[in-house]
Amino acid sequence: MKIVVPFKRKNAKSRLASILTPDERDTLAMNMLHDVMGALDGFEVDLLTSSMLSNKDVDFSSCILLSDYGLNEALNEYLNSRAEQDNDSVMIVMADLPLISSKHISEIAGLDADIVIAPGKGGGTNILYIKDPSGFHVDYYGASFLDHLRIARENGASVEIYDSFAVSTDIDEPDDLVELLMHGSGKASRMLTDYGFDVAVRDGRVGIDRNRA
Amino acid sequence: MKIVVPFKRKNAKSRLASILTPDERDTLAMNMLHDVMGALDGFEVDLLTSSMLSNKDVDFSSCILLSDYGLNEALNEYLNSRAEQDNDSVMIVMADLPLISSKHISEIAGLDADIVIAPGKGGGTNILYIKDPSGFHVDYYGASFLDHLRIARENGASVEIYDSFAVSTDIDEPDDLVELLMHGSGKASRMLTDYGFDVAVRDGRVGIDRNRA
Repeated sequence: MKIVVPFKRKNAKSRLASILTPDERDTLAMNMLHDVMGALDGFEVDLLTSSMLSNKDVDFSSCILLSDYGLNEALNEYLNSRAEQDNDSVMIVMADLPLISSKHISEIAGLDADIVIAPGKGGGTNILYIKDPSGFHVDYYGASFLDHLRIARENGASVEIYDSFAVSTDIDEPDDLVELLMHGSGKASRMLTDYGFDVAVRDGRVGIDRNRA
Repeated sequence: MKIVVPFKRKNAKSRLASILTPDERDTLAMNMLHDVMGALDGFEVDLLTSSMLSNKDVDFSSCILLSDYGLNEALNEYLNSRAEQDNDSVMIVMADLPLISSKHISEIAGLDADIVIAPGKGGGTNILYIKDPSGFHVDYYGASFLDHLRIARENGASVEIYDSFAVSTDIDEPDDLVELLMHGSGKASRMLTDYGFDVAVRDGRVGIDRNRA
């Protein structure tokens, strides 16, 4: 199995612009990538990115593939090239999942289905396992969970849904930082604490607060 | 093990008032309760409610306990009375978890820890398993996940976190209906479809649309 992690550094995490500066968002994106790569330690990982990164930046010996395509095009090109090589299985892991651990990856890889989808909240696909990359293509953006179910069905592939709160937690919006602060233990979570973020309860609702000491 | 489900019918799901009428919210709450009770079939269940419900309303032979207390007071009184009777373990299951199945309940009940917490998104506690009800108390509202961790620590109790996207999905706000439409298969999910709700993608974001035919 090959794991591929698509990663966009330029103007990363723009939906956090209301609470983080561009530099802070860049640091958060890099720290989340670090946490994700930690969970993938021991697996064969390709980092798929159009950003200039060195192996020093990510501190892992993963292979870095540069691509100027958009997310879908880059991943589908990757799947095609895997199919042409050995057609070994591929797992696509998003780079903004700082709560995942190697246990999730092993469990997903150990399932029997042709396609395993670990949903993200709001209709997303956070991890996608593809046993046979030939004939499959991805369609991220929008309700990709439904799109991937449909593509699998069209291919006659069996599907299993992997049920995990940690994997479903992608970090896109300010409210998502609540989950990272509460449930995280890696670099991305520590960075938020170092930046003065804390969980705050207002009118019974849980949000975040920033204390600029 | 006893399972207790606290349920509030009066003005239920008020945060959905922007998209559902009071009658529709009542029906949704009752359908979610139905789905939850279905997942608990075969277990001993107490329904803890201040609303007048008959066993006909819930279509299950669970015991209905009336309580006029608030959520925390009612549950803590329940835990005390369990402790005084046989001190058998208690699982508290929220009534707005329409994606749960009996598999989740069995897995949680099968864990070894003194306390098992299945987090809800946004710092909540969606299922709480308490091996020894004497000496434990609950503190819902706000960041209850952190509160329950703290109470367990103060009691010297071992804790396990149960990681499930389905269990983490409580239905409180309009965006939560996306999850119910996409991942649900019970009465609550079918009701949304019958009411004309569908998943809609706008500017790459997934939300819901209502077609009033």
